[in-house]
Amino acid sequence: MKFSLPAQTILLPSPVLVIGTYGPDGKPNIMTAAWGGIASSKPPCISVSLREATLSFHNIKQAGAFTVNIPSEKHLKEADFVGMVSGRECDKFGTTRLTPEKSRLVNAPIVKEFPYALECALLQQVDLGSHTMFIGNIVGMVADGDVLNSHKLPDIEKVRPILWGSFGTMAYYGIGSKLGDAFSVGKEVQRIREGT
Amino acid sequence: MKFSLPAQTILLPSPVLVIGTYGPDGKPNIMTAAWGGIASSKPPCISVSLREATLSFHNIKQAGAFTVNIPSEKHLKEADFVGMVSGRECDKFGTTRLTPEKSRLVNAPIVKEFPYALECALLQQVDLGSHTMFIGNIVGMVADGDVLNSHKLPDIEKVRPILWGSFGTMAYYGIGSKLGDAFSVGKEVQRIREGT
Repeated sequence: MKFSLPAQTILLPSPVLVIGTYGPDGKPNIMTAAWGGIASSKPPCISVSLREATLSFHNIKQAGAFTVNIPSEKHLKEADFVGMVSGRECDKFGTTRLTPEKSRLVNAPIVKEFPYALECALLQQVDLGSHTMFIGNIVGMVADGDVLNSHKLPDIEKVRPILWGSFGTMAYYGIGSKLGDAFSVGKEVQRIREGT
Repeated sequence: MKFSLPAQTILLPSPVLVIGTYGPDGKPNIMTAAWGGIASSKPPCISVSLREATLSFHNIKQAGAFTVNIPSEKHLKEADFVGMVSGRECDKFGTTRLTPEKSRLVNAPIVKEFPYALECALLQQVDLGSHTMFIGNIVGMVADGDVLNSHKLPDIEKVRPILWGSFGTMAYYGIGSKLGDAFSVGKEVQRIREGT
C-alpha cells in the first residue's frame, strides 16, 4: 500500500563528503556534508550544498576552491565528529589528528589519511534558501595507491566509503555485496521481452 | 603513497535514481541517473543532471516536473535497463512491466513497484556543459508502507537501495552493515581529546 507523505529530503543512499577549505588566515578546516553529487561530466563538476552559518561556506566563497574528501569506514568517527562541531570553535584537523596537505591544483587542503579526494575550483553558486549549492569544477584527484584499480581509478571495494542512511535510521552504513555489472544486468530485461 | 590523477567524476557512493517524466503526448518515461543529490533543506530540493540528448531532459523542461524513484535491490535489472535505452526507441514502462502512476502533486509518473519516490516541481536549471542540472522542489513523497519506520520515514534497511560503484568497478552494490549512529559515534573523538 502506498502512502502520500510530506516532502522530505531523503535520498538513499546519501554520500558522506568531507569538505576541505582554507580560511582567509590560511587555517585549514573540514566539515561533513551529505547534500551533494556529481553535476556534470564535461566539464567534470560536483555540487555540494552548505548553509551560510558554516565556516566552510565563507571559506569557499573567499578562496574560490574546495576539496571533496571521501572517508573510508575506518574514518567513521572522524567523519561524524567534523560534522558536529564548527571550525570557528574547534581546530578540527588538530582534534581529529587528521593531516591537511595543500592541494597542488587548488587553494584547499586534502585530508591525507582519507583514501581519495576531488580537487575543485569554484565555478558557480546557486542560492536556494537554507542552502547554497557550490558547483566546483573538478580539476584533479589525489588518491592512495592502494585504493586504485589497474586503470588508476578508485575502486569502491578498496575505498570502502561510508553511506548515510538519512533521517529514517540516522545511521551510517558500509557498502554491501556486488549485485551486478552496470550496463549489463539490464540486458536480461530486453532478452526476456524479445523471447530470446 | 598518494597519486595525483586526472579529474574524474568519481563520487563514492553514487546513487541510482530513476527519473520519471511525461512527454508532451502524455507518454510516461523513465531513465536512470547517477548524477544528483539533495540540494537544499528549506525549500526541500534535489538536483539531477541530465544530457540534452535524453528524452527526459526535454520532458522535464516541457512538463516542469519530474519524480525521483528509488529502486530496491530486487529492481536491479529494470534500473540498469532503463539507463541503457532511450525512451524515443522503447516504451520503457511496457518493456520492464513497471507501472506508471500519476503523481497527485506534479505532472510526472511514479514507478509503482519501487519503494518510494520524491515528487518534484522544476525550480531552476543550470547548464554546465555536457549536463544540465535540474533543481526540483520536492513537494511530496510517495512510499510503500512496508519500507517506512514508525515515524513514517523510509528506512534504508527496508528500502535496500542500490549504489553505483562508479567507473572503478562499473558495478552495482547493495548496502552493507550499519557502522554507527550519526551525530553520535564522533563524540568519542572529543572524549579522547579531552581525556574523559
